[in-house]
Amino acid sequence: MYTAAPSAAELVNAVVEQLRQYLAERRRDSAYIGPEYAELTAALEEFVLRGGKRVRPAFAYWGWRAVAGEDRQSDAQALRLFSALELLHACALAHDDVIDASATRRGLPTVHRHFADRHRTNSWLGSSEQFGLSAAILLGDLSLVWADDIVATADLPADAHVRVHKVWADIRTEVLGGQYLDIVAESSGADSVASAMNVNTYKTASYTVSRPLQLGAAAAADRPDVQAVFHQIGTDLGVAFQLRDDVLGVFGDPQVTGKPSGDDLRSGKRTVLLAEAVELAERSDPAAAKLLRESIGTELTDVAVKEVCMAIESVGALAAVESRIEMLNRRAIETLNEAQIDPQAKIGLAELASLASNRSA
Amino acid sequence: MYTAAPSAAELVNAVVEQLRQYLAERRRDSAYIGPEYAELTAALEEFVLRGGKRVRPAFAYWGWRAVAGEDRQSDAQALRLFSALELLHACALAHDDVIDASATRRGLPTVHRHFADRHRTNSWLGSSEQFGLSAAILLGDLSLVWADDIVATADLPADAHVRVHKVWADIRTEVLGGQYLDIVAESSGADSVASAMNVNTYKTASYTVSRPLQLGAAAAADRPDVQAVFHQIGTDLGVAFQLRDDVLGVFGDPQVTGKPSGDDLRSGKRTVLLAEAVELAERSDPAAAKLLRESIGTELTDVAVKEVCMAIESVGALAAVESRIEMLNRRAIETLNEAQIDPQAKIGLAELASLASNRSA
Repeated sequence: MYTAAPSAAELVNAVVEQLRQYLAERRRDSAYIGPEYAELTAALEEFVLRGGKRVRPAFAYWGWRAVAGEDRQSDAQALRLFSALELLHACALAHDDVIDASATRRGLPTVHRHFADRHRTNSWLGSSEQFGLSAAILLGDLSLVWADDIVATADLPADAHVRVHKVWADIRTEVLGGQYLDIVAESSGADSVASAMNVNTYKTASYTVSRPLQLGAAAAADRPDVQAVFHQIGTDLGVAFQLRDDVLGVFGDPQVTGKPSGDDLRSGKRTVLLAEAVELAERSDPAAAKLLRESIGTELTDVAVKEVCMAIESVGALAAVESRIEMLNRRAIETLNEAQIDPQAKIGLAELASLASNRSA
Repeated sequence: MYTAAPSAAELVNAVVEQLRQYLAERRRDSAYIGPEYAELTAALEEFVLRGGKRVRPAFAYWGWRAVAGEDRQSDAQALRLFSALELLHACALAHDDVIDASATRRGLPTVHRHFADRHRTNSWLGSSEQFGLSAAILLGDLSLVWADDIVATADLPADAHVRVHKVWADIRTEVLGGQYLDIVAESSGADSVASAMNVNTYKTASYTVSRPLQLGAAAAADRPDVQAVFHQIGTDLGVAFQLRDDVLGVFGDPQVTGKPSGDDLRSGKRTVLLAEAVELAERSDPAAAKLLRESIGTELTDVAVKEVCMAIESVGALAAVESRIEMLNRRAIETLNEAQIDPQAKIGLAELASLASNRSA
């Protein structure tokens, strides 16, 4: 157990260590199913351990420390439970990349492309793309299953199990809801700020911050007051987190984000930033409005991407989103300071909040 | 509680009733996520309730009755738990249909086609096929999640929970293994009987019979002896079940199976029946061997399908598979008769076994 508060980097390492151990156990225990299957489980392990900010287990950890008290279980046990969030996330990413037909993830080929390449290298029969898609669906399913197994077998008192499972049920049903709302919004061309915010709530705010915080608290104690505070903080920080994503998706440095520059512009992703830009432009700058409407979601050249970026800045959308991020962060920190929780957890959460909304990738 | 043994039809109805109640609860509880999401959850409900033989919950029910004794919990509680197997199966079907690019399931459009049609009808943006695929992935994920929630929240003593979860962990890891082995075998052109049998073990025998039986027994009592017997019976019946599927996939009546005639021949599915036919033909009938090798997995006319069917029969593969089904069934019934379990469960299981391997759809 950490005597003091672990740093953000220490937490990341501890989560990765739990994932490494758990995946090694599961891979060993499933080896009897056959050597071919071991390739799929190896790919899952590689995908999960490859990288990531591990922000969800970190929020869960601080949610747990917030109410756990002195006689808490070991950090290793708690982090094993919270690392289920990373496996759930691996499922969401693998399936999302199929849904978005994305080619890269964290600067490397997406799961479906990795398996399509393997099919091609082996000169196998049939379509390499279909094989890649199929393997990515199964890898995501397996990740979801193994995530559930962590939660189901967590070493917790019966009442904590019930509380934890309630949050776990909500987070999974909600994130799938957010993903479905997202594809419907993209397909139906819904471009209002309200529609984008609704997707953000379930696909990001709840999934990335509120529910992980609540999962952590639920594992430690029956504290409905803290659950309510975490819902409030989580909604603010989660939306700030997503808005930072929106900004990085348009203005981010490809070297740092691992995604091509202007990625969200070309894909026509319905973000709050773009919805805000269109709404502001329509009120003040018809030429910019026309440019945005005609450019977003098309195959833009790098020069055209720069032009659209300038329009988003000049109509004031970037500034509006940046100030919204700042306001949300400030409000979350104020709520946090007033909460009846462990003082060290307040420090840890404030640090995490600042990392999440000021990151560059 | 049934005072005597429920009939197969009564069991089906009772499982469907549990699914209907559970899905109504979950849909109501997730309505806050938005009206668009309600379309996805409605499609899941419709897909699950649409039909199916409910054979997995039925095996689980008899596995439970086999060792449950007089003071057992209510049938409704037990069947709620076992209906999780149907939701797991709905996930497997929805994702499998994407993987196989199947157009119909139970005589109706597959999930991905249903959503592609909806996209087209709404004249939405982007590719209807991609939307259909995405919605089917998410619907399958949701079904898996809701299946897990049933198991996690089942009203069972702590020791039964641990036993049940162990079987549940195995069944999910194994069925995904079976699916992956299947796509690898199809892609790599593995056409040995051994390879097809390995896929059958995990994709069908274990998934459809052994593990459901064991899940039921685990919910009722700590009986390692019965778990071992169920593994044995389940493997025999499960393979018989899959071999019946193989026969129906080639010789089945499309009016009854809901699949086009000769479906497995055109898709080039690596079944034991086809592997057996190729192996027998190579030993005794070079012309038939050539015909089989050149026809399987191609776009056959209805006349050509008949020709291939005749070859499969004439080389003795159909007879060999039918006699293997009969032998497996007989052996399973013998093992069952010797087992130290409830006599009524023996009758129920024997009836189920005969239904599963002599069915026409």
